Amino acid sequence: MMGSLAYVGGMSVESVLEVEGADGTVVGQELERIGYRGPAPCPGAVPHAYVELHIEQGPVLDRAGLSIGVVEGVQGISWTELLLTGQSNHAGTTPMTLRRDPMAVAAAVTVAARDIALELGGSQVATVGSLTLHPNLVNVVPAHVTMTIDLRNTDEEALQFAERDLGKRTVQLAKAEGVEVKSRTLARFEPVEFDSRVVDQIEQLATTRGLSTKRMPSGAGHDAQMLARICPTGMIFVPSVDGISHNPAEHTDEQDLIIGTQLLADTLLALTEVTW
Amino acid sequence: MMGSLAYVGGMSVESVLEVEGADGTVVGQELERIGYRGPAPCPGAVPHAYVELHIEQGPVLDRAGLSIGVVEGVQGISWTELLLTGQSNHAGTTPMTLRRDPMAVAAAVTVAARDIALELGGSQVATVGSLTLHPNLVNVVPAHVTMTIDLRNTDEEALQFAERDLGKRTVQLAKAEGVEVKSRTLARFEPVEFDSRVVDQIEQLATTRGLSTKRMPSGAGHDAQMLARICPTGMIFVPSVDGISHNPAEHTDEQDLIIGTQLLADTLLALTEVTW
Repeated sequence: MMGSLAYVGGMSVESVLEVEGADGTVVGQELERIGYRGPAPCPGAVPHAYVELHIEQGPVLDRAGLSIGVVEGVQGISWTELLLTGQSNHAGTTPMTLRRDPMAVAAAVTVAARDIALELGGSQVATVGSLTLHPNLVNVVPAHVTMTIDLRNTDEEALQFAERDLGKRTVQLAKAEGVEVKSRTLARFEPVEFDSRVVDQIEQLATTRGLSTKRMPSGAGHDAQMLARICPTGMIFVPSVDGISHNPAEHTDEQDLIIGTQLLADTLLALTEVTW
Repeated sequence: MMGSLAYVGGMSVESVLEVEGADGTVVGQELERIGYRGPAPCPGAVPHAYVELHIEQGPVLDRAGLSIGVVEGVQGISWTELLLTGQSNHAGTTPMTLRRDPMAVAAAVTVAARDIALELGGSQVATVGSLTLHPNLVNVVPAHVTMTIDLRNTDEEALQFAERDLGKRTVQLAKAEGVEVKSRTLARFEPVEFDSRVVDQIEQLATTRGLSTKRMPSGAGHDAQMLARICPTGMIFVPSVDGISHNPAEHTDEQDLIIGTQLLADTLLALTEVTW
């Protein structure tokens, strides 16, 4: 979503071009290389409206046997990286009570993040998707662990509660083990509400076509949440089979792709006739 | 300890030469390359006795301000690798209750292993030293997790209890999350008791020299545990500063190295006069 963020003026083109990928490549150099570094100014022109068609990337529509997700907004996203530093030591000779084991803390934090999501309920989710041990050897208590925690909620207050609660528990767990914690925010976006006029329009046109619909939030981040800063915005979801996404098995039936594209065309056509 | 295991006939020379390292190198080829592939037969000649001098690699002597550890035996070692397979999915769009998250299971198993060690007490230790997520991305529920669990105890029955208990809890935790578990034993050695005549000899000679001693097990594996299969065997420990081992900060004071070497010489000399 870096491109859309720059388009709406949320990040300067200069900063975008300097961004370095995990593999060491630099955005500006790569755009140059493939011939995509263009001269158009940023922030760009303000659109009349913005409508994005996307697969749901989740299981809700598929499980319910529904055709169309009318997206009301995007969940707030909070990405935190923890660097837990303990004392590397021999796994056989160091008594449990004399350890400062960062993996013990990482495991307890992972369990706590899950507990918090289940206790809060609603749309709250918590994921530990990345975790790396050093030196990562079977017979060595790790020296340090780097891990990420992905928290999301449609409700900003609830998301802040989850962040605070997990932060407190992390500090307590680390202190009990004599492990040092460094925490850094990798990304933070507040929940976004789409324009009710666009949302209503999509729902009405879907109903006209006889499609089954469900109003829902997007759990994933999308360009639409950036464009929502500058113009009336909405999104259309089509089902993901078994909710599988970010995975080679990701699939949406051809019929659903056609239905979604037709509804997008209906919506764009209708919006050309609206004056805000 | 592969060399000593082959020396005592616990593993054939052919199998040893075929062993492949984590970096893809092969033992036989590397021995050839550095000119260390010799013609001596294996199993080798049975020694009159075997005494090994080693740093403790743990904090016990250093914390107690003692000079010599008189090693009575080696802890039993149980290394297990778990491959936990769930369903990779989008971290934002997949509700907590519809997940099959192998990292959630890995974290709970890590916590359980630690709980079991603390509940059993005594010499029981449990370590998760290696853990790898795939695809290891902040916003993706992992598809699978590979992790190792290192369990050790001087008591074989207690070690077997720890293995069974952790196995049961792992199956329950994985089942509750809909995650598949594949388990494989990477290494398993029963506890070894050294020859009491050698152990007594070491203790007596240390006392004669006015050295402070403590009888203790070895938490780490050593060649001595292999040689103990074929001849009277013992070990001498000298202190490790702060118990640090498998770490660049590993250190033993020069004076302790000298004391240990002198005691080794005393012991070898005394054993030449013993008839078993």
